[in-house]
Amino acid sequence: VAALVRVPSRFGSYEIRFGDERLVGELPDRCWIITDDNVRRHWGHVLPKDAPVRSVPPGEASKGIDEFERCLEWLAQSGADRRSVVVAFGGGVVGDLAGFVAASYMRGVPYIQAPTSLLAQVDSSVGGKVGIDLPQGKNLVGAFYPPQQVLVGQAFLRTLPDRHIRNGLAEVVKYGYIADTELVERMSGRLEERLPEIVRRCIEIKADVVAEDETEQTGRRAILNFGHTVGHALETYTGYESLLHGEAIAVGMAVEARVGERLGVTAPGTAQRLVETLRQLGLPTTSHHLRDVEDLIDLMRRDKKSREGRLAFSLLLHPGACKLIEDVDVRAVEAALLES
Amino acid sequence: VAALVRVPSRFGSYEIRFGDERLVGELPDRCWIITDDNVRRHWGHVLPKDAPVRSVPPGEASKGIDEFERCLEWLAQSGADRRSVVVAFGGGVVGDLAGFVAASYMRGVPYIQAPTSLLAQVDSSVGGKVGIDLPQGKNLVGAFYPPQQVLVGQAFLRTLPDRHIRNGLAEVVKYGYIADTELVERMSGRLEERLPEIVRRCIEIKADVVAEDETEQTGRRAILNFGHTVGHALETYTGYESLLHGEAIAVGMAVEARVGERLGVTAPGTAQRLVETLRQLGLPTTSHHLRDVEDLIDLMRRDKKSREGRLAFSLLLHPGACKLIEDVDVRAVEAALLES
Repeated sequence: VAALVRVPSRFGSYEIRFGDERLVGELPDRCWIITDDNVRRHWGHVLPKDAPVRSVPPGEASKGIDEFERCLEWLAQSGADRRSVVVAFGGGVVGDLAGFVAASYMRGVPYIQAPTSLLAQVDSSVGGKVGIDLPQGKNLVGAFYPPQQVLVGQAFLRTLPDRHIRNGLAEVVKYGYIADTELVERMSGRLEERLPEIVRRCIEIKADVVAEDETEQTGRRAILNFGHTVGHALETYTGYESLLHGEAIAVGMAVEARVGERLGVTAPGTAQRLVETLRQLGLPTTSHHLRDVEDLIDLMRRDKKSREGRLAFSLLLHPGACKLIEDVDVRAVEAALLES
Repeated sequence: VAALVRVPSRFGSYEIRFGDERLVGELPDRCWIITDDNVRRHWGHVLPKDAPVRSVPPGEASKGIDEFERCLEWLAQSGADRRSVVVAFGGGVVGDLAGFVAASYMRGVPYIQAPTSLLAQVDSSVGGKVGIDLPQGKNLVGAFYPPQQVLVGQAFLRTLPDRHIRNGLAEVVKYGYIADTELVERMSGRLEERLPEIVRRCIEIKADVVAEDETEQTGRRAILNFGHTVGHALETYTGYESLLHGEAIAVGMAVEARVGERLGVTAPGTAQRLVETLRQLGLPTTSHHLRDVEDLIDLMRRDKKSREGRLAFSLLLHPGACKLIEDVDVRAVEAALLES
């Protein structure tokens, strides 16, 4: 383990360590591990033998308040105390759920993120946003609660199905378009072969943004939300059944680039270029649900960025730059949905 | 409103304001009020007319994860956003529940404590400890999340039943014995007549202790837990049915003073004096459940102060001073339970 990224936080900084699957074999004593059934099947053998393990069903349904409660009762029943360490060993669902469990159990115990999916490695495991869903929307309940460390094991990507690699690449595309023109330019050909360097670059971008605005006070961190206003609405609307998170935000980015162009915020041609990037990677850029304009806009009004029902979007200025725009005209959103 | 106490916090300091019921009429716009059915019946008329109000059944049962979920869904359905302010208008149950709802909704919205019970005014509304219960124990889930302000309306004590005044006086006795010999000495005769000055003194003590150790890192804040290791175990064991919180910690203080004397930590005679103080105020100092030694000790091992199952107690040195003692000999606890 040579490479490290350090993320500053209001509760003390933490390290991101890169390595192979052995990272997870070296967990500290008194770890309580939360994982999902798929990850456990592929990688359960690398975990310390005597650690308690709770495995949840894969998928967004495990991010409800019921599984949150079951995890908390499991910790209490198995004798976890304030010096116990919760480990999130899995994708974004496991990381968000286990992180909020750690944030809440006994008013907060330490936790380690050990992300196994590309999406979790490049995005959700870094930055301390943890949480669960309500029927009314995704991630509506949670905390800003940084991990003690993040262990990025590149080996875990080997057992990911192609669809889940593409799912993570949607977030990679996001990083390029919001913050790094060079990353955008390199986004052709077979990205998979360059994954280690790409993962690291995405984490560096995220760490920089989080360092500037850890708890979303200034709007800076909101740029990481590009594509997510529409994407989250689509996920909530479709009940997390048909679209993976990355697929929903791929569609969301395409729509939001068009919103930006309509408002004159985003440079003309950006949406077209973004759509081509996404298509080349095999990601969706539209959905027939976009026609249900009223329902989706209702959901967007409940987005955490919105204030008193006014729509807010993180919009591209051009490939490589993004900005939070509050009080967006609903007509631009309606038109972009219908155009996409 | 002349008198103010200011409490420092890692998220910025906050004010405690003293006054009458009009304090609550001057709440800011966009308040979402959580209260209980008793408080609403007596004092609902002082609330701002157009604020959304959610009233929960009185009692500890409302501090479960089910009511937590219902409050969160109520906020989401009624359009609360990150600029909304949650108001906890009620006793300790409402304050702990509403505080954790505010800490978790959209990863944290501001909240105001408006405590209406003596217990909440002197103790639970100050210091930012919020949370809910699990079947395995009280306050096992929660956050350190300071309020935006605390509004202490002395008028609200007028409608409290005598038993609930005594309930709060148990915490007043605790403050005297852990931190203020003068307060101990004044603890005779009719305390009710001197409630305003007593409430203020208790809040000052709490603010000082919290300022030194907001998130329970050093053991200093644990002195506020005197009587609570046994008291919480008793509450959990009896299912929160027969004993109010103050009654349980009155019994708990009596037992823990005896634990301290047995260990040579607490000056001889302290337990006897404490028991006399409690009896004079009409508070219980024993319970037939104390005979169920094994069950209670099992519950104490799950206390948040315990580490790897070793018992930890905040024990008096003498009236006016207290200290966290870790790894307490279980035999001293068994003997003190049987003696009480």
